[in-house]
This record gives sequence, structure tokens and C-alpha cells, in this order.
Amino acid sequence: MAIKVGVVGAAGYAGVELVRLLISHPDFELTAITSNADAGQSLASVYPAFAGVCDLAFTTHDDPIIKTCDAVFLAVPHTAALAAVPGLLAAGVSVFDLSADYRLSDPAVYEKWYATPHTSPELLATRTFGLPEIFAEDLAGAAVRHAAGEATLVACAGCYPTATSLGAYPAIDAGWLDDGAVVIVDAISGVTGAGKSANARTHYCSADECVEAYGVCKHRHTPEIEQILGLPDHVVFTPHLAPLKRGLLSTINIPLAEIPAQELTLDMVVERYREFYEGRPFVRVLDAGQMPKTSSVAGSNACQIGLALNKTARMLVVTSAIDNLCKGAAGQAIQCANVVFGLDERRGLPLIAMPV
Amino acid sequence: MAIKVGVVGAAGYAGVELVRLLISHPDFELTAITSNADAGQSLASVYPAFAGVCDLAFTTHDDPIIKTCDAVFLAVPHTAALAAVPGLLAAGVSVFDLSADYRLSDPAVYEKWYATPHTSPELLATRTFGLPEIFAEDLAGAAVRHAAGEATLVACAGCYPTATSLGAYPAIDAGWLDDGAVVIVDAISGVTGAGKSANARTHYCSADECVEAYGVCKHRHTPEIEQILGLPDHVVFTPHLAPLKRGLLSTINIPLAEIPAQELTLDMVVERYREFYEGRPFVRVLDAGQMPKTSSVAGSNACQIGLALNKTARMLVVTSAIDNLCKGAAGQAIQCANVVFGLDERRGLPLIAMPV
Amino acid sequence: MAIKVGVVGAAGYAGVELVRLLISHPDFELTAITSNADAGQSLASVYPAFAGVCDLAFTTHDDPIIKTCDAVFLAVPHTAALAAVPGLLAAGVSVFDLSADYRLSDPAVYEKWYATPHTSPELLATRTFGLPEIFAEDLAGAAVRHAAGEATLVACAGCYPTATSLGAYPAIDAGWLDDGAVVIVDAISGVTGAGKSANARTHYCSADECVEAYGVCKHRHTPEIEQILGLPDHVVFTPHLAPLKRGLLSTINIPLAEIPAQELTLDMVVERYREFYEGRPFVRVLDAGQMPKTSSVAGSNACQIGLALNKTARMLVVTSAIDNLCKGAAGQAIQCANVVFGLDERRGLPLIAMPV
Amino acid sequence: MAIKVGVVGAAGYAGVELVRLLISHPDFELTAITSNADAGQSLASVYPAFAGVCDLAFTTHDDPIIKTCDAVFLAVPHTAALAAVPGLLAAGVSVFDLSADYRLSDPAVYEKWYATPHTSPELLATRTFGLPEIFAEDLAGAAVRHAAGEATLVACAGCYPTATSLGAYPAIDAGWLDDGAVVIVDAISGVTGAGKSANARTHYCSADECVEAYGVCKHRHTPEIEQILGLPDHVVFTPHLAPLKRGLLSTINIPLAEIPAQELTLDMVVERYREFYEGRPFVRVLDAGQMPKTSSVAGSNACQIGLALNKTARMLVVTSAIDNLCKGAAGQAIQCANVVFGLDERRGLPLIAMPV
Repeated sequence: MAIKVGVVGAAGYAGVELVRLLISHPDFELTAITSNADAGQSLASVYPAFAGVCDLAFTTHDDPIIKTCDAVFLAVPHTAALAAVPGLLAAGVSVFDLSADYRLSDPAVYEKWYATPHTSPELLATRTFGLPEIFAEDLAGAAVRHAAGEATLVACAGCYPTATSLGAYPAIDAGWLDDGAVVIVDAISGVTGAGKSANARTHYCSADECVEAYGVCKHRHTPEIEQILGLPDHVVFTPHLAPLKRGLLSTINIPLAEIPAQELTLDMVVERYREFYEGRPFVRVLDAGQMPKTSSVAGSNACQIGLALNKTARMLVVTSAIDNLCKGAAGQAIQCANVVFGLDERRGLPLIAMPV
Repeated sequence: MAIKVGVVGAAGYAGVELVRLLISHPDFELTAITSNADAGQSLASVYPAFAGVCDLAFTTHDDPIIKTCDAVFLAVPHTAALAAVPGLLAAGVSVFDLSADYRLSDPAVYEKWYATPHTSPELLATRTFGLPEIFAEDLAGAAVRHAAGEATLVACAGCYPTATSLGAYPAIDAGWLDDGAVVIVDAISGVTGAGKSANARTHYCSADECVEAYGVCKHRHTPEIEQILGLPDHVVFTPHLAPLKRGLLSTINIPLAEIPAQELTLDMVVERYREFYEGRPFVRVLDAGQMPKTSSVAGSNACQIGLALNKTARMLVVTSAIDNLCKGAAGQAIQCANVVFGLDERRGLPLIAMPV
Repeated sequence: MAIKVGVVGAAGYAGVELVRLLISHPDFELTAITSNADAGQSLASVYPAFAGVCDLAFTTHDDPIIKTCDAVFLAVPHTAALAAVPGLLAAGVSVFDLSADYRLSDPAVYEKWYATPHTSPELLATRTFGLPEIFAEDLAGAAVRHAAGEATLVACAGCYPTATSLGAYPAIDAGWLDDGAVVIVDAISGVTGAGKSANARTHYCSADECVEAYGVCKHRHTPEIEQILGLPDHVVFTPHLAPLKRGLLSTINIPLAEIPAQELTLDMVVERYREFYEGRPFVRVLDAGQMPKTSSVAGSNACQIGLALNKTARMLVVTSAIDNLCKGAAGQAIQCANVVFGLDERRGLPLIAMPV
Repeated sequence: MAIKVGVVGAAGYAGVELVRLLISHPDFELTAITSNADAGQSLASVYPAFAGVCDLAFTTHDDPIIKTCDAVFLAVPHTAALAAVPGLLAAGVSVFDLSADYRLSDPAVYEKWYATPHTSPELLATRTFGLPEIFAEDLAGAAVRHAAGEATLVACAGCYPTATSLGAYPAIDAGWLDDGAVVIVDAISGVTGAGKSANARTHYCSADECVEAYGVCKHRHTPEIEQILGLPDHVVFTPHLAPLKRGLLSTINIPLAEIPAQELTLDMVVERYREFYEGRPFVRVLDAGQMPKTSSVAGSNACQIGLALNKTARMLVVTSAIDNLCKGAAGQAIQCANVVFGLDERRGLPLIAMPV
């Protein structure tokens, strides 16, 4: 019997990516798509790729069908998820939240970075963090609780934190990071990362033929990366915008302690990473000397990781590529839902990008 | 039991699109991919999207496995197909030829436009033309012969002829074209249409931020369009190159005879087109007033058609959008193979493009 | 002594292109730039290319300095020019109007296509049409009147009409067009042509990797092209949007009468075009067999024209490339102003695009 | 009297950018453009932007006119400059070398990174390093020697070193860098930076919609940056390729010593940078809180610099944008030549990018 799911905030870019993936998911049945701005319009009128192949239309966020779903994906801005989650859980609906509202485990950190109070901090203790390759046990626990009939809240990791943490975690976990050192992350995102809102920045004639940094020293994904890596106040993160639609590349500079810097070879680093991701179908550690292209993962739920070693400067340089809308948002949420619902994590998710 | 298939010329853009679609096709088993230039290399080394998910490697075109396949897709330049097809058919292998070698039914027309003799003109009489929405009966006949054990040759339509004919055929078939009038086609293709060869024209810094016409009054798809539409010497076709990877838009100007021009309304035109494509899952005729975007079909096997009517100038203007690599090449070839092998024509083919 | 000029509507794309060109113009002194939406902001804050090199700030359209200028360039939407022009002329200011308000000589045609009454039709009889290569005498007349102290109104040609007319006029003027035939124009524009307004259509993620037709059979440049070419109701014009910033390519299909179709060679056509544009520095007729790229003219005031001949179908195919913001808007307006003020038409205008 | 100049290697991207700038330079007269590959062809046939406006044609590198020039710009690959420079200097021709051959002052470093012996190391002691904003005195000295009749060799800085050093130098010079710390540079270049060679990497369909790192931990601009900043073995440099034609953004992470980290405010940093670049027309330090876009400098010789401060992590983050072909290559070489020939450094150089 199909698992009934809904997407709240389905007209945004992450939302419509959820729709794309869910309408062909073999186990989930998409029963409602909501958008307060586009309510009443057909999906195909807003996204003509669906013309003739999907009859869904947008309803408002308070569509009563939502509370009859087995699971709901929330693709709404922060604070909107804060408002919606407690009621959904109370109605017995499992929630896969793509917003930032339940990612940071310390409400004080949330309030500092998002400049708004956290209205349901008690949920932070029990929510699961949705980054399956790093927090597999948490997600397995959520699956057990879900099987026992409990509605589950999964706070899915953000796009930059996903690419960056998948690239950095195995090295940090191995204890290679120099004591007290700062990890420096320069990342590049396609314009879908700036959202569907039409403004001076997302205008074609602004974004085309242009690269720029933004949110320097103040981007809200910084504390999330620090939390995942266990490095409070020791990550410097600079995101950049580049002229492509989908794709995110994170370049991570990890200063090495003296001993690993002396003893490690690049082959050993590659091997360590491959061991770490053994059995994880979406993460691929490239051969020594190869670096990933974002086009190799666009449209898929894959993450490709490349590694380089500068022994003189004692620096491990990692580049990690994902599709910001798929592995960085919708695909990862579905991957989490697959696990929570006891399915193979690959169900309904594209493994391979278009080769050209 | 799986149907064994091979791709000859698998390293080019149409070839690798065949590979992308065939490795996840539920009924076909891809057993060989050949490329004389890349023989010995892994698929993933040439197209890193396949890293970690596909172990296939290129062999040479004369790989003996090819002749053990049930079907072979030929994605080689013209004349190379001429050389390969008779041997494949003799070995009992059905051939889906993406080249131009068997498209033109009159060998004299082939020799005029391709400046080379046709070495197996006898096959032109029996080959099937691969454009399923227009030549459905031919393809059905091929399926019957195939079921009876006969190896089949399908000459798949080219990219511009596919988009153009799907856009023009219902009007021509309805007898609306003015007697003796010339149909004027201006079409725009993405750069994958120029092929994988790296040259001054396909260099990023030439193609980016640039639109240009090419092959004006001499493009080889002209006689193919004329043949499909039954309009010898009455098509003027001008292709253009635009800065995108995938996508082809054909704008077709059809001068109307006096009576239909007076009597037709746009709604009647839309209705006629929808009747014509009734039951064809890949072709979608948009509502009156809407025109297709190539991004609405990129990555899928769909064709979207928009219609407009200028009654004063007695002109029907049709725009027709496809993905040149999918519906314009690899996807259409697989669609033909599905039909010939008695499968649903949709098997293994993407119906929906990425919405953003 | 410098000629004082102002730009009304300087924050839009055509407006800021005027600013770019005027601040380095050797004879004009830019004294005011207006924008009701951006009034009070510095030019550099809206267009950071000017950071540190230009201190101008936007004022409102009713800035009194405007009426003290020798000439004003109007880069405002249609109807806004209608409202402004009479007062400017009354104040003795010459006006170079980039809007459509004074282009169509017949107010009834204006009212039909723009669905609004023309409030100063008496000016249509005396205004000059600003397309210097075709209406040289008119512009020369305006220069004479201006030298005599009269304020002048020049209605500068639109972007599509400029490229299309420069490409079609020599053939029409030579009498080659078949009697009663329809000229079919399919043109492609970069996204600056859609203006600075941020909306669903100009969002990077809509426009990128996408080609589409728009305004089919109803684009307002149709009657303007028909007026210039003297072909009422005999032009079918379909504009397209392609993913580039600047650049416009018009592909013009001109059905030939029987005699010229028989007698003409492509070399004769090229020669005719070169004769027609003899002495015009911005128009370049390419050698037979060559077609222009929009990138060859982007950023400059040049127009490049390519020619092809299909004798069987009796069709002359012309492609004509301009920069829609420069020769198609700001550059052409300055070219007109140069002539009216008795300067060399090349003053202050870029002749050469960036080669790469 | 005009200064006669030639460009050796004029068909490459830096070469043709030199040609673009030199043909409209008011003091230099371009007398020869050479290209062994394109010798005999007209400039316009290779770069159609010049059609109808420039009659120059390519000759071979050994064109005798070259040695009659007052100055020659060398836009050839490394080792080719090594071969050419001694002979040119001996002939009394001043050389502005855009290659890497004379940039590194220590021939051992050159031989290590370029894997080839330096054949004229004696010239390294007397050559001038061409980065006018940092090595103004050296260049002034060269001007004095040139005025005294001496042929001069200027080794112009590379593109990444230019953007990076302009962004980092004022902070390093102020003594803010933490003792022994590593400066981490992640930079992004447009595809013109990969050169005119058509290959799998520069193919439109590879570069479009793709971001990737390359040359990680081994790019040859690393020792050049280290030399300029005086930080041997203390720079980690990772270049990236993004889908745009022109533009280079360098993001520089500078770890601060304890005292400056405590005492500095962002305003103080901005002020320091502005003092440092006082009187330098091409470098613009943006207001606190603003970061440059590459599109704000593309086509011009400008460099825009943005600054941000992370006091917790003791990190100064600088982003520095240039046009890699202009300020990063051709424009800078002409700027150096202007100084050496006693002209205003701005002569013939574009100060302002196209605003859109």
C-alpha cells in the first residue's frame, strides 16, 4: 500500500524538485502540493515541464489533506517550519523539514544567527539530523521509532553543509585536523541556490557571466557546518554564486597536524575516505588526482569527492560536488524518508547525472 | 529474458545518451559500448557522471559481441553506418541507425546532399523510417516482421526533421498548405547538436554569448524534412546555434490556402493537432497562446508544440521543442526499438524534464 | 563648448547603456540621469561597474536640469514618452526618443497595437525616424533644422526593426521581392531585450539553457518593420529569447520574384548590399558564404549582415546581427544625435566588439 | 611620433586582447601581429569582430618587422618567450612578456615548477616585474632606463597572481598576517583563462553548467603568488573553472595575528586598503560590506576589492575581481608599457566595464 506524502511549499525550487522525484517514486504517493502564492494554479502552468503528464494543482498550506498524509516534506522558509511542525507531529504526520528551523541543536545558536526566537526548542532534543552518510545511527533510530508508530521529525541538512561535511568529515573523524586550526571553506553554488524569487540578483543579466562572493563571514550555514564537524567558531565559510542552474562545489582546506601531515600519502587519504563511505551508494570518492565537476552530479542524488595533499603547507584540500536541489535538498529529504519508512535508501532517487 | 543490445559509437553525445538511457532500461541489457577513439578506456573516465555506478568500458567497433546482440544502436557518422549495416543484418541483428545513411528513400538525393555513393540502396526499400508518431504503421509492420524472426533496419529521423515534422505534419496532412507554397523553417539548436568534436566552433568562448545561423540554404536535414512532409524543393531551412547544451526549437511558417485561412480559428488548429497526436505519450500540444520552452523537454523524450495564427498574412506559425539528444536522437531510437520489440513505447524513456 | 545632455530613464538597460557611452563621449557632457525608482541612489550603487569612476546619482524625471539640456535621451516605456516629449520640445530641448511612441507614422496603427490613444499625433508629421543608414536624408534635414535653432524630435528605431530592416531593405529597395509575398522574419534576442524588470521570465533559472518564441503573431515591432519596409500586413515576425545577455540576430526570408531569382547570383547580392551601405561605417556586409555571430557585434554599434540564396525555392535568406542595447537602442540614438548636432556619426561610439 | 609596437602570438586570447586595445591606443601604432598557426590569414577571418574595420593579417613570429618595433608584446607559451627575449633585447626592442618565463626571480624555482631549464637566468636580475600597483618603483626605474635608451624587459604578472596579490598585499605589507600562517586562496576563472585551444575541457558542453577545481596543490601560479607576497611555501592556491568567458575572482583567506585581530575593525581595514591604493586609477576598494562581481570589471583594466573580517576566527577574507584577459594579461602589459614609455598609465585602457 502506497505511503501518502505531501509537499508543503511545492512551488519553490526545492519544492518542485521534491515533486519531480515523488511523482515517479515507486512507494510514495504524492497526494498534495501546496503553495500559498500559487494556490489554484496547476503545476503545469507554473512549471511547463509537467504539461500533459501531471494533473496536480497547488492548494494552500492549510489544505486539510496535508494532515492525513503519512509524511510531509516542508520546503518553506525558516520560521514557517517552526510554525507548522508541532501541529503536524501532533497529527501523527512524520515531517521531513528542508528548512533550517530544526537543524541547529542549540536554540541559542539558532536565535543568534536567525535573529528570531525558537518557539519549539523541546523538539530539538528528539529531532533527527538528516545527513544519512554521517548520522546513519540517528536515522536508524528514527526508523525504529517510526516503525513503532511514532511520528518523526527529520531536520534535513542544508546544501552547503551537506557538500562540505561529506567532504570534511572523514578527515576530521580520523583526527587529522591540527589542534585549534580553522577549516576554510570556499564554496560555489548555482543560481537555483538563490531561490525562485525574481530580484536584481537572480535576473539573468546580473547572474550571467558573473562570479561573486556573498554573505562573507555571516552566512547562516556556518554554524551548521561547525555543528556537524564539531568545530564551534573554527570554520570560515565563503559562498560564491556562479552562472549555472544546478550544482554546488565546496572546496575545503583542512590544516593537518604534524604527524598525519608527515605520514599520510594521498593514496592513504583516498583509501580512508573510501572506507568511510563503504556501502553508501550516493557518495563516490574519486581516484587520487581527480577532482569532481558539478555537471557530473547535477540532477542526481550523488556526491563526488576529490582529494589533494599539500605536505609542505600541511594542508588537505578536498572538493565535494553535489546538486544543491537534489542531494542538497529534495533528494536528501527523500533519502531520509526512505530510511525512516524502512525502504532502501535509493528508492526513487536518480543515481546518475546526465553525462552531457 | 533480457534483450541484449549494443551501442556502436557510444562515446559521442548521441551515443552516451543511448548509454544513459539503456543502462536503466528495464527490458534491454546493454552488453557492449564501442568507440574506436576511446577503446580501452572506461566509460567513467570519459564521462565522469558514471564514476562508481557503471563498470562498462569501450571496445572497438569490431568487438565480436556486437554481432551477438539482439539489437544494435548505431551512433556513428554517415558512411560508417553504410559500411556496418549490411553485415549486422546478415548476422541477424536488428539495427537502429541514428545516422543519415538510410533516411532518404531516394539514393540519388542521398548522393546529391552527402556527395558520396549509396552502397546499399536495396535496403532503402525495406528499411523503416523511425519517427513513430508519423510513421506508426511502418513501425508496426517492422514489429510484425521482427516477431517473425526478421532482422530489422530502422533509420531514425534526425533532430531537426523530428522537431520540424512533428510541428508541421498535422497541418500539411490536413491539406491546409497553400498550393505550391514554400514552408519556411528557422530552427535553433543547443551545442550538443554540433557534436563532441572540440573545435573553434564548439569552444566555450566561441559558443557562449553568441547566436549564429549556419549551413544556410545547404543543411543536409533539408531534403529529409521535405521527404517527410512530401514537399520536395519547397522547404527553406535555416538552423541556428545558441548557447545551451541540450534543446532544439523549430519555428515553422506554413502559408495557408485561402479557405482554411478564412475558416480556421486557433482553437480549431489546436484541436486538430490534439486529435492527430491522440494517444501519443511523448507529444504534447500546448493550449492556444502558449509556446514551448526547450527547457521544458530537455533530458526527456517529450516534444511540446505551440501554435499561432496570423490570418491577415495567412500564416500558421508553429514552434516545436525537443531535446536534440533524446527525442532527436537516442530516445527516439529506443522508442523505435521498444515498438519493434513489442514493448510499450514508453519503456525506459523519461517522460518529464527537470522542472528547473 | 560641450553639448549638455541628459538621460531620462537612465537606470534601465538602454538607459545605462546611454550613460556608459555618454560619459566618455568627447562632445557631449552628461549632466543628469533620472530614474523615479532609483532617485537618490548613486549610479555606482545600482551598477557597480561605475564604482570609483563616476559620481553621478539618479534624480527624478522632473529634475529641472533636464529642461536646461541641449538634448535629452528618453529611455522610458511607451506612453511615458508621449507625456514628456511635448514639454521638452516646448522648452527647446531636442529629444532622442528610444520608446515606441513616435515611431509609427499613423496614429491609428499606434492605437491598434499599443491599445492607447496617441496624445500628440501632430508631432508624428514632423518627427524624424532614427535609423540613419536608411533614412539618412530625414536625419540630414533634422540637422539643418537643428542648426537653425529648432528643437528636434527623433524617434529611434526599435531593436528588432533595426536589425531586420538593415538586413532586408537593400533587397526590397532593389525590387527583388515577389509581388504580394510575405517576408518572414524569425529573430533571436538576448535577455537584456526583456528589460531590467525581475520576473519569472528574466530569472536566471528560467532563461538559462532555454530557447523559446514569444509574442508570436502579435509582437509590436511587426508594424514598425512593415512601415520601414513599406509592406503593410506582409511581414510575419516571430521573436525568440535565447540565453545570452546582449545580441540580436534577425533571420529574414525574402521570397524573390521570378526574374531576379533567375538572374541573381550570391555575389551579385553581396555587391548590391555593399553598394547600398557604401560609406556607412557601422554596417558590414560579410563575404558570400559567411554569416554573422552576435558576439562579433556585442558591445559595439556595428551591424553585420550575411547573405544566402536558395534559387530553387526563390528565397533570399539574410541574417543580420546587432547588439540590441547599442545599435538597437542607445548607440543608435547617439548616432542620430551626432548627426543632428553636426558631428561625425561615429563620435563616441564603439566600432569594434570584444573579439572574445 | 607614434611608438611602433608588435604583438607576437596575436591569435591567442591574450594576444587578440592586446590587438583590440592597441589598435585604438592613441600613442602606440600596431605594426605587426604574428601567429605561426594562423600566418597568412586576416585578423578578421579568425576574429570576425574585426570584419571591415581592421586590415591587419597575421605573419609568422620571425617577421622581420618585429625587430624594428619600439616595443613587442609577447603572448606566447612559456619557453617560447625564453627563446625570443634575448634576441629582441639585443635588437634594442623593449619586451613586455605575458608568459611566465621571466616572472620567477629564482631560476631554480622556475625549473622546479616548469620542469625545464632557464636559459637566460642573467636577465632575471635586471627584468622588471610588471604589477604596477605593487612594484611601482621598479617600473619607474625601468622608465628611467628606457628614457636613457635601454631596451627593457618587463615580466608581466599572471592573472591569478595579479588578482590575488592586489587583494592580499596591503594586509601582508601592514604586518597583519599571523606568524608562520598559511594564506589560503581559492580563485575562480572564466574559460578564456584556459586558452584558445579547443579540447575536451574547453568544449562548450563540458564547461557550460559546470564548476570544477583544477591543478589543485600544483598550479604554477602558486610560487608566483608566494614570491610577490614574500611567503615561500606558505600559500595554498586552488583555482576553479566556471562557465563565463572573462572574469577572475580570487578569494583570499588571511589569518591574522592576535593584536591586529583584536584591534582592527572592518572600517580600519577598508581605510588601510584605500590608502595603499591612493592614486592608482585601476584599483577600487569597495565600501565595507560590499563584494565585487567579475561582471563589474570584465572588459576593463579595473580591479575591484571587497573586504570582510571574522574576528572570532581571526581571519581577513578578501575578494578581488579582475578581467583575466585585460588587467590579468593584455591590459596590464599595456599599462606597464605606458609607464615605461613615459605615458599616463591609463592611456588606451578601458576604465569602465559594460554595466550590463
